[in-house]
Amino acid sequence: MAPTNVGGIGLVAEDVHIGGQAPEPLTLEGIRTRRAKAGKLDAPTASYSDSDMFKAPQSFKKPLAKRWDHLLSPESAARKPCVLKQAAKHLKKPGLVSLGGGLPSSGNFPFESLSMQVPSPTGGFSHTSGLKQVTIGKHDVRDGEGNGVLDLSIALNYGQSIGSAQMLRWVTEHTELVHNPPIADWRCALTIGSTGSLEAAYRMFGDRTRGDGILTEEYSFSTALETAAPLGLRVFGVPMDEQGLLPDKMDELLSNWDQEARGGARRPRVLYTVPSGQNPTGATQSEQRRREVYRVCQKHDVFIFEDEPYYFLQMQPYQKGGSAPAPSPSTTAKPNGEPSSSGGNADVEAFMRTLIPSMLSMDTDGRVMRHDSFSKVVVPGSRVGWVTGSEQVIERYIRHAECCSQGPSGFSQAVLYKLLDEEWGHDGYLRWLMHLRDEYRGRRDAILRACERFLPAEVVSWTPPAAGMFLWLKVDHTRHPHASDKSLLALEEEIFDSCIDRGVLACRGSWFRAEHDKPLSGLFFRTTYAAASEEQMAVAIERFGDAVRGSFGI
Amino acid sequence: MAPTNVGGIGLVAEDVHIGGQAPEPLTLEGIRTRRAKAGKLDAPTASYSDSDMFKAPQSFKKPLAKRWDHLLSPESAARKPCVLKQAAKHLKKPGLVSLGGGLPSSGNFPFESLSMQVPSPTGGFSHTSGLKQVTIGKHDVRDGEGNGVLDLSIALNYGQSIGSAQMLRWVTEHTELVHNPPIADWRCALTIGSTGSLEAAYRMFGDRTRGDGILTEEYSFSTALETAAPLGLRVFGVPMDEQGLLPDKMDELLSNWDQEARGGARRPRVLYTVPSGQNPTGATQSEQRRREVYRVCQKHDVFIFEDEPYYFLQMQPYQKGGSAPAPSPSTTAKPNGEPSSSGGNADVEAFMRTLIPSMLSMDTDGRVMRHDSFSKVVVPGSRVGWVTGSEQVIERYIRHAECCSQGPSGFSQAVLYKLLDEEWGHDGYLRWLMHLRDEYRGRRDAILRACERFLPAEVVSWTPPAAGMFLWLKVDHTRHPHASDKSLLALEEEIFDSCIDRGVLACRGSWFRAEHDKPLSGLFFRTTYAAASEEQMAVAIERFGDAVRGSFGI
Repeated sequence: MAPTNVGGIGLVAEDVHIGGQAPEPLTLEGIRTRRAKAGKLDAPTASYSDSDMFKAPQSFKKPLAKRWDHLLSPESAARKPCVLKQAAKHLKKPGLVSLGGGLPSSGNFPFESLSMQVPSPTGGFSHTSGLKQVTIGKHDVRDGEGNGVLDLSIALNYGQSIGSAQMLRWVTEHTELVHNPPIADWRCALTIGSTGSLEAAYRMFGDRTRGDGILTEEYSFSTALETAAPLGLRVFGVPMDEQGLLPDKMDELLSNWDQEARGGARRPRVLYTVPSGQNPTGATQSEQRRREVYRVCQKHDVFIFEDEPYYFLQMQPYQKGGSAPAPSPSTTAKPNGEPSSSGGNADVEAFMRTLIPSMLSMDTDGRVMRHDSFSKVVVPGSRVGWVTGSEQVIERYIRHAECCSQGPSGFSQAVLYKLLDEEWGHDGYLRWLMHLRDEYRGRRDAILRACERFLPAEVVSWTPPAAGMFLWLKVDHTRHPHASDKSLLALEEEIFDSCIDRGVLACRGSWFRAEHDKPLSGLFFRTTYAAASEEQMAVAIERFGDAVRGSFGI
Repeated sequence: MAPTNVGGIGLVAEDVHIGGQAPEPLTLEGIRTRRAKAGKLDAPTASYSDSDMFKAPQSFKKPLAKRWDHLLSPESAARKPCVLKQAAKHLKKPGLVSLGGGLPSSGNFPFESLSMQVPSPTGGFSHTSGLKQVTIGKHDVRDGEGNGVLDLSIALNYGQSIGSAQMLRWVTEHTELVHNPPIADWRCALTIGSTGSLEAAYRMFGDRTRGDGILTEEYSFSTALETAAPLGLRVFGVPMDEQGLLPDKMDELLSNWDQEARGGARRPRVLYTVPSGQNPTGATQSEQRRREVYRVCQKHDVFIFEDEPYYFLQMQPYQKGGSAPAPSPSTTAKPNGEPSSSGGNADVEAFMRTLIPSMLSMDTDGRVMRHDSFSKVVVPGSRVGWVTGSEQVIERYIRHAECCSQGPSGFSQAVLYKLLDEEWGHDGYLRWLMHLRDEYRGRRDAILRACERFLPAEVVSWTPPAAGMFLWLKVDHTRHPHASDKSLLALEEEIFDSCIDRGVLACRGSWFRAEHDKPLSGLFFRTTYAAASEEQMAVAIERFGDAVRGSFGI
């Protein structure tokens, strides 16, 4: 049987062009009510599902996205649905016996159950006390074990490339709750992480034989650059300030594009950006900045890849000197666990309101493909994330994934489903994010205190990050005794090597240049406060300071 | 610290060109001895590793592989190592503090442990009795819990795209044990499953602007065809018999290649083949056939993608009428579990000798990239497999994976490591494969008995599969009353629709045509015996027989 269709796709046709008054955003309470009304999700092995099945009815009253046929690559446009997956539609016929798909019998899966020990919201997410044991069995659904709608016989067999209906429901609800996209036909698809979904996005919108290129921040995530290069997609950097991308500069660049001067590259039609806690600069775009960037993209018909692994690591502002602010409003739930009314989630809803709105949330055109990831907020090793975009874009993405990954690991999906859906629920997950934000704020404050203490203020400067896990250190090369006779690259190398000698690894700014053939614009080092302990960070920053002092002779 | 280097890379330089006498193949006993000698594997978070660390010393005495620069695509040739992953080499420096990679602290992973219930060799792999509970904790390695060398703090953080050193060791040893590749510089890399590794392989060796194409069986795995098409790679079918690919026909095709007549496609330089239990035909190439195909590839300098998901589902020959043969030599271990000498593994070693040698095992040129998968023999949902090929090919593959997947799920790797390495070991896994072979033989014999009973022998014929999960049914269209006035495609559709009406889904042969623009060569249906129960298969085959009879009016 097909999963319960709770979204009422029929609404689309009638109501979609009404527009006008903005529909109410989804609430935690609204999700609970809707799930209760929809009844238990019935999604057996390899079920078809899409986000429309899980969206709030009011979502369908919004206007439709624009079409992107003129930007899709020939490769993407040529993709057809898998013939074997299409045949699955016949499986709905009652009494049908399938000798079709080569799906192994779950009787031959050598896993009878999987259990995990996880921290709980009621225990304040302590890693030592209040741990809960959560178990998923092979035939829980068939045997009616617990209230679960996913078991190992489903999760570990082949599935749809969009991901399991069970996890798709969760990411769709979460996305609606947090971003409430302003188009009717938005959808999600699970991914194998944002590395994979970004590569797919490049191939969907980029083709080297058309001279396609990509806009991004002047300093950008090195793997994103390394992914574009072998595809023959040229990358062009947009100047930045402490809030990241400068919309005026971007407008100027696009308005005065000279294809010949750019080595035959046509005006880029795609922007890759990390709006929150940008990698490597740590810059976070304000709401105003995001709206301005979006408007420039509209003006030049540029499609946006919004990569947001650090979105929920938005922190309270740094207090100079590092005096710790009061922690977030209680990150532990009421002792009775599940709050009975939306009143019990006031702190969670207050937290959501502190988040800078995403580009997805302002995307009236459907020109954003957002890449979300569990890597920074759950574990990197799940290799699970999700993309959100218009129905057309997500459909093309799924066609790509069918031939490239077949969707994320079933073990990962099983574990994430048990934790995020059954055990924590949406409110528990948001409490976890509040908890993590405090954790990262503590780490950020510690590295900033070390910088204030150990770095020579006359040559090293920084902006306290408002999000993410990176601190970008600017070294004023104009004050270097060899500023006039050594290149920036040589100075950078000298300081980096001296750092290694002294026992600290910091990343060189040049590794992140969007355009490697342009001269360096400054002397930068990327540091992270995600991994090392507070004490180790202090040691490391002191060593970095010594390396700079040694090079500058101060 | 870097993992223990047990392979002695130093041997390569001195001994590699000696050749002459073939080195002894690796044995189960040999692996145990070598591991004991090497000491405990030390491979913390994101450790670099490669297969040379885990190969038997005698492996390095073989000749080196040929180079494939002339076949690599511009995209693949342009790939450079990730700059951030290269910086990881500095992590070896004692006392260094890294502020480099943005790896989250495992303190923030919300999983303290993961446990699984698995069947054991000593219990004959019963799913009800003799289940063992196996647990992996977050800090087992640091805390010295058990003898394990992998824990959740490592498995769930970022890792290398080649996969964890722990699982790479396992697949390298397994590959050496089963295939003993005849070149010195063979290596493995873990993959996200063969769907992903095949797509990568196509992009590594194929470029549409060069007019590249792919050879494959006349009827081939539909997803493999659908993966090639949007990349602009033309696929060309080689005629088959009941053993699959016909080497003479392939030679003829390549010798008389007419680029103009082929719409500008240049002579294909790549063969995609499924030698065992081919999908969809179920054909299995004999050793002799594989050697002939390999020789034709050498003659025309064709590179081979050997896709072998069904390799271990090679079964004992079918006895007409379905009388069950004696099961495999004991699939249960001695009561004391771990056999103390190789004598205790005589049945496992006998099993390995029954397997038809792979193309990898005869690949003196290093022109084979083999794709192995856990999907058909453990679970499809792990989304883990591995590729084996020459050092050059595997290095290019890893560069691709760094920007496309970042390697397989850490949850999957953790679970597979615990099961395959710690719990079962190589001999236990081979016993599992023996067990599975008996299981599939039973399923195959059941569907064949149903065919003998319910299908009209005058129009439906088949070859009992020697491997895999597919039975290919040939319907003699020449005996159809409308043979002269209806197309084969129309007849196929008529029978398919009638099957659906009667409640059975079988795949249409036309879905698997390598060349969709050529007329169909016959009327075929693919059925699988992997999923349905014995009773359901009988019902389904009876319905299929009725559909054929209805169409033929017999």
